[in-house]
Amino acid sequence: MKSAESLKTSDAVQYEGGDYDVIVVGAGHAGSEAALAAARMGNKTLLVTISLEMVAFMPCNPSVGGPAKGIVVREIDALGGEMGHNIDKTYIQMRMLNTGKGPAVRALRAQADKHAYHRQMKLTIEREPNLTLRQATVDQLIVEDGVCKGVITNTGARYHAKTVVLTVGTAARGKIIIGELQYQSGPNNSKSAVKLSENLEDLGFDLERFKTGTPPRVNGNTINFDETDIQPGDEEPHHFSFDTPDSQYIAVSDQLACWLTYTNPTTHGIIRANLDRAPMFSGMIKGVGPRYCPSIEDKIVRFADKSRHQVFLEPEGRDTDEYYLDGVSTSMPEEIQNKIVHSIKGLENAQLMRPGYAIEYDVVAPYQLHPTLETKIVKNLYTAGQTNGSSGYEEAAGQGLIAGINAGLRAQGKQPFVLKRSDAYIGVMIDDLVTKGTKEPYRLLTSRAEYRLILRHDNADFRLMEKGHAIGLVSDERLAKMEAKKAKVAAEIKRLQSIKLKPSDEKVNTFIERHGDNRLKDAVAAADLLKRPYFDYQTLLNFIPAPQDTLDRHVIEQVEIQLKYAGYIKKEEVKVERMKRMEAKRIPADIDYEDIDGLATEGRQKLEKIRPETLAQASRISGVNPADIAILSVYVRQGKFSKKGEQE
Amino acid sequence: MKSAESLKTSDAVQYEGGDYDVIVVGAGHAGSEAALAAARMGNKTLLVTISLEMVAFMPCNPSVGGPAKGIVVREIDALGGEMGHNIDKTYIQMRMLNTGKGPAVRALRAQADKHAYHRQMKLTIEREPNLTLRQATVDQLIVEDGVCKGVITNTGARYHAKTVVLTVGTAARGKIIIGELQYQSGPNNSKSAVKLSENLEDLGFDLERFKTGTPPRVNGNTINFDETDIQPGDEEPHHFSFDTPDSQYIAVSDQLACWLTYTNPTTHGIIRANLDRAPMFSGMIKGVGPRYCPSIEDKIVRFADKSRHQVFLEPEGRDTDEYYLDGVSTSMPEEIQNKIVHSIKGLENAQLMRPGYAIEYDVVAPYQLHPTLETKIVKNLYTAGQTNGSSGYEEAAGQGLIAGINAGLRAQGKQPFVLKRSDAYIGVMIDDLVTKGTKEPYRLLTSRAEYRLILRHDNADFRLMEKGHAIGLVSDERLAKMEAKKAKVAAEIKRLQSIKLKPSDEKVNTFIERHGDNRLKDAVAAADLLKRPYFDYQTLLNFIPAPQDTLDRHVIEQVEIQLKYAGYIKKEEVKVERMKRMEAKRIPADIDYEDIDGLATEGRQKLEKIRPETLAQASRISGVNPADIAILSVYVRQGKFSKKGEQE
Ligand SMILES: Cc1cc2nc3c(=O)[nH]c(=O)nc-3n(C[C@H](O)[C@H](O)[C@H](O)COP(=O)(O)OP(=O)(O)OC[C@H]3O[C@@H](n4cnc5c(N)ncnc54)[C@H](O)[C@@H]3O)c2cc1C
Ligand SMILES: Cc1cc2nc3c(=O)[nH]c(=O)nc-3n(C[C@H](O)[C@H](O)[C@H](O)COP(=O)(O)OP(=O)(O)OC[C@H]3O[C@@H](n4cnc5c(N)ncnc54)[C@H](O)[C@@H]3O)c2cc1C
Repeated sequence: MKSAESLKTSDAVQYEGGDYDVIVVGAGHAGSEAALAAARMGNKTLLVTISLEMVAFMPCNPSVGGPAKGIVVREIDALGGEMGHNIDKTYIQMRMLNTGKGPAVRALRAQADKHAYHRQMKLTIEREPNLTLRQATVDQLIVEDGVCKGVITNTGARYHAKTVVLTVGTAARGKIIIGELQYQSGPNNSKSAVKLSENLEDLGFDLERFKTGTPPRVNGNTINFDETDIQPGDEEPHHFSFDTPDSQYIAVSDQLACWLTYTNPTTHGIIRANLDRAPMFSGMIKGVGPRYCPSIEDKIVRFADKSRHQVFLEPEGRDTDEYYLDGVSTSMPEEIQNKIVHSIKGLENAQLMRPGYAIEYDVVAPYQLHPTLETKIVKNLYTAGQTNGSSGYEEAAGQGLIAGINAGLRAQGKQPFVLKRSDAYIGVMIDDLVTKGTKEPYRLLTSRAEYRLILRHDNADFRLMEKGHAIGLVSDERLAKMEAKKAKVAAEIKRLQSIKLKPSDEKVNTFIERHGDNRLKDAVAAADLLKRPYFDYQTLLNFIPAPQDTLDRHVIEQVEIQLKYAGYIKKEEVKVERMKRMEAKRIPADIDYEDIDGLATEGRQKLEKIRPETLAQASRISGVNPADIAILSVYVRQGKFSKKGEQE
Repeated sequence: MKSAESLKTSDAVQYEGGDYDVIVVGAGHAGSEAALAAARMGNKTLLVTISLEMVAFMPCNPSVGGPAKGIVVREIDALGGEMGHNIDKTYIQMRMLNTGKGPAVRALRAQADKHAYHRQMKLTIEREPNLTLRQATVDQLIVEDGVCKGVITNTGARYHAKTVVLTVGTAARGKIIIGELQYQSGPNNSKSAVKLSENLEDLGFDLERFKTGTPPRVNGNTINFDETDIQPGDEEPHHFSFDTPDSQYIAVSDQLACWLTYTNPTTHGIIRANLDRAPMFSGMIKGVGPRYCPSIEDKIVRFADKSRHQVFLEPEGRDTDEYYLDGVSTSMPEEIQNKIVHSIKGLENAQLMRPGYAIEYDVVAPYQLHPTLETKIVKNLYTAGQTNGSSGYEEAAGQGLIAGINAGLRAQGKQPFVLKRSDAYIGVMIDDLVTKGTKEPYRLLTSRAEYRLILRHDNADFRLMEKGHAIGLVSDERLAKMEAKKAKVAAEIKRLQSIKLKPSDEKVNTFIERHGDNRLKDAVAAADLLKRPYFDYQTLLNFIPAPQDTLDRHVIEQVEIQLKYAGYIKKEEVKVERMKRMEAKRIPADIDYEDIDGLATEGRQKLEKIRPETLAQASRISGVNPADIAILSVYVRQGKFSKKGEQE
């Protein structure tokens, strides 16, 4: 038998597969949110994905949340997305990070049972009435006159829809690399998708090549945990979703611990001695990797003076003893990976179960997108997630939600939905991507948000639930709950503002003096006392009457934060107002930048490439300088622009 | 960017990966048993598999057991294998089949939570001390002078071992076929293994091409169950493993039901009208399919007069609403699959989640194997499971256990272990495969066992636990438990034989007459009364004293069966004894059949091809007639044979 003959491929005969309002391609973290959102908005939705075993699968770290990302999960939840519910049902450890720091940087992080997370999301999708989940590979888009009308699968189905969302992740012409070994593959050895990328190129899309990587997994039964430091979960209950009651919190004793160890000079020596075999440096990897999730070989090269790096040992679930080695993402040859792992304290005898690897994949350069995540080249086609050049489950889910919402709104003939930078981290991310573009896998960081005291994890419900309700993703009941909470916060703040503590009040003065502060000279509102660092809400109640109804801790948290940080928050709000005025200045979609005298060449080119929708967006494009903005502003105000390509 | 360039593959640089006693390639149902057995026997064992997500994965029916197969699971359990424990931990429904028929055909069948089954087996493997589980694809065997010394993986590891077991299943040069669509793939869209097949061909192995298929899966939320008949589990507790106590039985109310519906003339019409597009008939599929698990298109063609076929709707697990359509395995185009499904009662609106498909794969023609499952071509290399031409999880697991045991024994320099046809269904299966070979995927059936009254599901512990103990897979404690049970059975039988019921006993005579039988004329032993069809053990206790200790139902079952079927059992035992004498007549390994005068040409060719190890085995080869056996018998007795290839 000839093997070439026996493995020959052939194509399916096409047939009409049915009509939908919205089709989502790829059921990763972006696609799951997109499809659920579109369906819950009342659209007949089809979700097609290469493998049903990969629905909301985590090919890298078994965790959700963390700085900035945790806030995105809250935002998704407030808007009516699924990620918060899903992780609340499947976490194995929960921790609030940065509790010692200000509220802007606090963030929740959960360790996930990654297989349970996948199963739970798949089940939710299976049970969603307007949604059909189907296994198939999309090979091609149906595009007529620049408008996307559906997709064609490898099994020959031609599915039609009003709008299509692509969330194809790292499977897009994916290639796995381990040392000198490289082969075509999606994440975790799943099937890759080749034809769709070719089709996108044919349609005129500019695809870039990115890469990301993952660490080896080891067998927990071969780890010497005694040599590492335990990292338990929190005693105090926390959840991602506003709907999950504290009573459902898993006791810390029933959570699984993580463990901390470190690389050392021996580890670094092994890596340095083998850099010629590192695909990252040998020239083998051409895709651009994530700066903020560097491989261990990258860290050793870039931070040559550091004598150690953290390595967190994270369990991958309750039903497995596999551990994820957070911190040693690598695409070094398996031989070297073994040596690296065995050089680390506690891992001397650890058995590698799977080697780490890098994956290269195609990205739709995001300057080709509107802020709605619709592509500029093909109408009614939206893209989200890793496809847009981001990295991370939360980033993908956040974009997926917005793309799904917009695909759903368009299908219903409604106005689009765009979050501003001052609305949400999701708004920051999408604006960064479509306005600034990205030359490497984009990751959300707290530092990317200029209004981070406003974009807190604790107020995502106040910020976004009304918007989610208007779209149809948040029920009246849920909205009412949020509004009741808001009212309680406002009432309590008002009450605290009305209660005055007098200089004659000995009890409070004694307390104040004990903290090295001066006795009250005038009457002071309880609200103002709370601003002092040594006061918190519970302390205050020692000196003033308790409110009529006892308040739950989420209300109290809001009261504290809103009062303590009132000054800073106010300042940011002023900035936001100023920006809003610029956001209101819309640039006509058909403006011809060639027609504007005085623009600098670079500015003109960038404006032409990005085609911003508002003056505010234009001002954030790198290479567009304030003089360009001034000229553009006048030009737009005078309304004397011509349609692109038209002769005046 | 050129896609051809970006997807280029390259090979890993090789390195020494370590020394083991036994290496098992492939962690399917065969490989999991093989590796656990070898490790539990004290061998340092490595289990290498393409994907850790596929460990003991069920690509087809989510169930374990059934006629003959259920008995194999009991046998595996009695010998110290894992399948029984694993399904007892993960079943969602349990039923004893054929309870109305004789004990020989009774069989247990469980519906599995297929993902839980996989996770549980993987966890057991992870926790086995002598066993290392590792993800990699074996590309090549290390063979020196006809002896297997290890394997080489795609990641470049050269692992050395004393013995190697191959259990590579349908991934071996796998190809998926759905209508006109075909592409290289392992089961469930997993990676296929191409290089290993090429290596086996280079080593001189005769590979055959088989195929199997699976039905579509549908979303349970779109099934109209009201139109189907419920198939609940059993009230009475049953388990596969002798170690699982009745107390762990899941209440029927907590089990998941299956549902029964039927195909109809419309279904059959759809299939008939599209036979030209059926890969089975269009000539596209070249591999030979399983006669006893035919596709629906096959059934329609072969049983043209049947107006309907059963379709069981089986849940795939607790955490999913996917349903397996047992009975409509198909590789028709997806378009036709949709029509077939929608033509069936209850499935009119059912949404297809995954299409059915056929898979073609390579098989090591099993005449190339010794009864130990060692290959004749390469020493210290064993093969098991689908690789040997069988089909089914239980068949694979049974062979895997035997191959693992023999690989382990050889690594320890010990004598091989072979089960005779009279020992176990596993013995029947392996003898069938290596002696008769198979031209299609081989499946165990009750009818294949000539001693089926001896090879019952209820006595697998009595038959095999001592053997498992001798190998080192059954603990002293477990053996003692079985022996205690055996002793109780024997004691109770002895007691029943000693208790006589007299003609003067009115109570018993009234009972006998009520059943239309004649009054006792002479004293009759209680044991003999039990043989009468209207007596069972509990009834008997109305007329005789109860035993001192109350007996558990497993002991009572044995007493009943051993007494009621004593005559038939005795007859089979006589046949077994006769066969054993022939089994004892070993044919020297180096016999030269050319040297034997008088053998018929076909007989000589077949003997040369199979090279049987005993006269008994020789007598079962099709094409070897009784005259050949008589000649061979004389020749062997006279001892006047020459070594093959030697000149006398
Ligand atoms: C090896 C690896 C390492 C990573 N490391 C990190 C890291 O360190 N930090 C980090 O933040 N993120 C990391 N990630 C990225 C993270 O996995 C992604 O950001 C996240 O999963 C993206 O979600 P997504 O929905 O955009 O894409 P995915 O989760 O990749 O989902 C895309 C889905 O679309 C399906 N699909 C693709 N093409 C088609 C098609 N043509 N038809 C139908 N379905 C299709 C795929 O099968 C897949 O299920 C890593 C990913 C990988 C694979
Ligand atoms: C589509 C389909 C339909 C089926 N239908 C039926 C049916 O109707 N009735 C029935 O009885 N049985 C059916 N089966 C067969 C059943 O799945 C098998 O009999 C059973 O799984 C065989 O077990 P195994 O251990 O021999 O092989 P598998 O379960 O296939 O396991 C083999 C393992 O080896 C791994 N592997 C392969 N090559 C390599 C390599 N080179 N290196 C490392 N690892 C490797 C694979 O990834 C896989 O995990 C079907 C199988 C498929 C795929």
